[in-house]
Amino acid sequence: MSNENLQQLLNTPAAFLAEPEKDGNVAVFTRIRLARNISTFPFPCAAHPEQLTEICELVTAAAGNCEKMNKDGCLSFDIAEMTPADREILKERFLAGKEILSGPENCRLLTGKDSSCSILINDEDHLRIQILAPGFQLDQAWVDTDALDNALSAHLDYAFDDQLGFLTSSPANTGTGLKASVLLHLPGLVMTGKLGPTIQGVNKLNLAFRGLYGEPNENPGNLFLISNQVTLGDSETGIIGKLSQVVRQLILHENAARQLVIQKDQAALLDHVGRSYGILRHGFKLSVKEALNCLSGLRLGVDMKLFSHVDMNCVNEMFLTVQPVHLQKYAEKNLSAAERDVFRAEYCREKLKK
Amino acid sequence: MSNENLQQLLNTPAAFLAEPEKDGNVAVFTRIRLARNISTFPFPCAAHPEQLTEICELVTAAAGNCEKMNKDGCLSFDIAEMTPADREILKERFLAGKEILSGPENCRLLTGKDSSCSILINDEDHLRIQILAPGFQLDQAWVDTDALDNALSAHLDYAFDDQLGFLTSSPANTGTGLKASVLLHLPGLVMTGKLGPTIQGVNKLNLAFRGLYGEPNENPGNLFLISNQVTLGDSETGIIGKLSQVVRQLILHENAARQLVIQKDQAALLDHVGRSYGILRHGFKLSVKEALNCLSGLRLGVDMKLFSHVDMNCVNEMFLTVQPVHLQKYAEKNLSAAERDVFRAEYCREKLKK
Repeated sequence: MSNENLQQLLNTPAAFLAEPEKDGNVAVFTRIRLARNISTFPFPCAAHPEQLTEICELVTAAAGNCEKMNKDGCLSFDIAEMTPADREILKERFLAGKEILSGPENCRLLTGKDSSCSILINDEDHLRIQILAPGFQLDQAWVDTDALDNALSAHLDYAFDDQLGFLTSSPANTGTGLKASVLLHLPGLVMTGKLGPTIQGVNKLNLAFRGLYGEPNENPGNLFLISNQVTLGDSETGIIGKLSQVVRQLILHENAARQLVIQKDQAALLDHVGRSYGILRHGFKLSVKEALNCLSGLRLGVDMKLFSHVDMNCVNEMFLTVQPVHLQKYAEKNLSAAERDVFRAEYCREKLKK
Repeated sequence: MSNENLQQLLNTPAAFLAEPEKDGNVAVFTRIRLARNISTFPFPCAAHPEQLTEICELVTAAAGNCEKMNKDGCLSFDIAEMTPADREILKERFLAGKEILSGPENCRLLTGKDSSCSILINDEDHLRIQILAPGFQLDQAWVDTDALDNALSAHLDYAFDDQLGFLTSSPANTGTGLKASVLLHLPGLVMTGKLGPTIQGVNKLNLAFRGLYGEPNENPGNLFLISNQVTLGDSETGIIGKLSQVVRQLILHENAARQLVIQKDQAALLDHVGRSYGILRHGFKLSVKEALNCLSGLRLGVDMKLFSHVDMNCVNEMFLTVQPVHLQKYAEKNLSAAERDVFRAEYCREKLKK
């Protein structure tokens, strides 16, 4: 059952990885997540199994009444029943955090087929409501999140304190329960050595900024997630407004850095892009790190209109699908690390053959 | 005049770089060269300018009577009148040695348009008769050289001594005046680290063996020229027979080495080939060294039937045409080294676009 749903999820293009209609391609996607709890139950960490089961059913029923969750078919995943690898796939697809990897009982993910809206039940909080949207769309994503939240609250009695706001399992989320993030592709800042100063600047603004993949200071793929850190003492629109302002600045900086690179040595930039494509299109062995770096180069090339036959959606999706667990799933059998590198290269060649 | 002829030479496919019909692709081409002098004149180094002029006219007239030299039109190059760069092109195309670079007076190259037969007049000797043939064709090339030599000797009185044989300017060529060479592509022996022992073995047999490009021990392109060193004390067919035997052995060793590489790690070999093609097909900056190494990888791939749309003739020709002087000629203007790398990459992309 979970397995069938997972196949449907893998076979449906993720809407948040599509090419955005505006604001260019520096921002890959926007994510907004709300932490909510039901007032009549203890937080998940303190609840009895029967209570958790009841919460699961209550939220599932409430979600069943939300048009947004059901417009293209809602998929349900009972996390405890899934294999560790399948759980990892949900994590790699940004539908849940690392907490689900241990397979907590009575934890359930409900998600629209295209992943654009989802609810994670009985993870750290009773509900984690999430909206994923392509590109830089914090304002629209907030409107959508708020609408989904309101629709659910018509059926659920949220734990709310007049002084503190929404109550959450971890004090770090109390207040708005809001975590807004934008995934940015910043090859220009990396190439010009301006990433370090940028990170320092962002950190001073009480925002979190981290590389999506690899070890710190390694950042294969040049993808960076920027999020608010403070959930208390400001309104939702206040938090989102401040984050928007910084993201807009970062996009400007990235585009300026790209222009700088082009002016300094256009051929070197084109060479970087061309080789990235050449290796993905013709290689036969590809580590995840090299694949991510080549995808970053290719993404830059698609953005620069060098590869008219490669679409951004495909490149964005490949960032996900070259990951070890996704690949393992596509291969439909266990692969050693060396076999996976060969299969990854084959997968990339086929994807780019069109 | 020379310039027009040079354009014709550059525009005519070099017959010796075509894919050979048999014996596979380890051997790129076979070259046989005969040193001859006319008995009634001193060697070029000792002759007066008027004598050199006379020799030039005599040999040109004799060549005019040889069917082989004229079947597709004979091109004539008066070396002293050429620019240093244009002389370098003749050298890069294997039609003359480095001696012509200084632009000696009264030195003339006569060559069939497709470069398969040529006569260099008043270089070290009065005549250097040369046959170039695709692949491993020492026997046939010798038959052709001998026929051309006989045709010329009907009109020219060669300097010949009953004891020593043909007399030449340098004692190193006296006797047969024969230098037979085969250009071999040996990526398998290089990859398996067996090239060193192979060279040592060949040197013991009184044969010369050297990398065609780059510094010793560097050998970008993995191309090696093997030639006889001794011209005296053996017949022409004896010299060619011994060289043939060794070349045949080297081809066997190379093919065995390739099998070894495939068996050990097929994906690594395919990856090497695929990346070589990817960089040539999609790069925007390419040094001559990297271009030669990528061409070596591509040549191996074409030989392994991985690139059905790339023909061997094209790859063989690119080994020549990525050289600095050829590129400069194609660009039709002076390029800095950095500009040349960009132009080289553009040239390779276009060539492989088909």
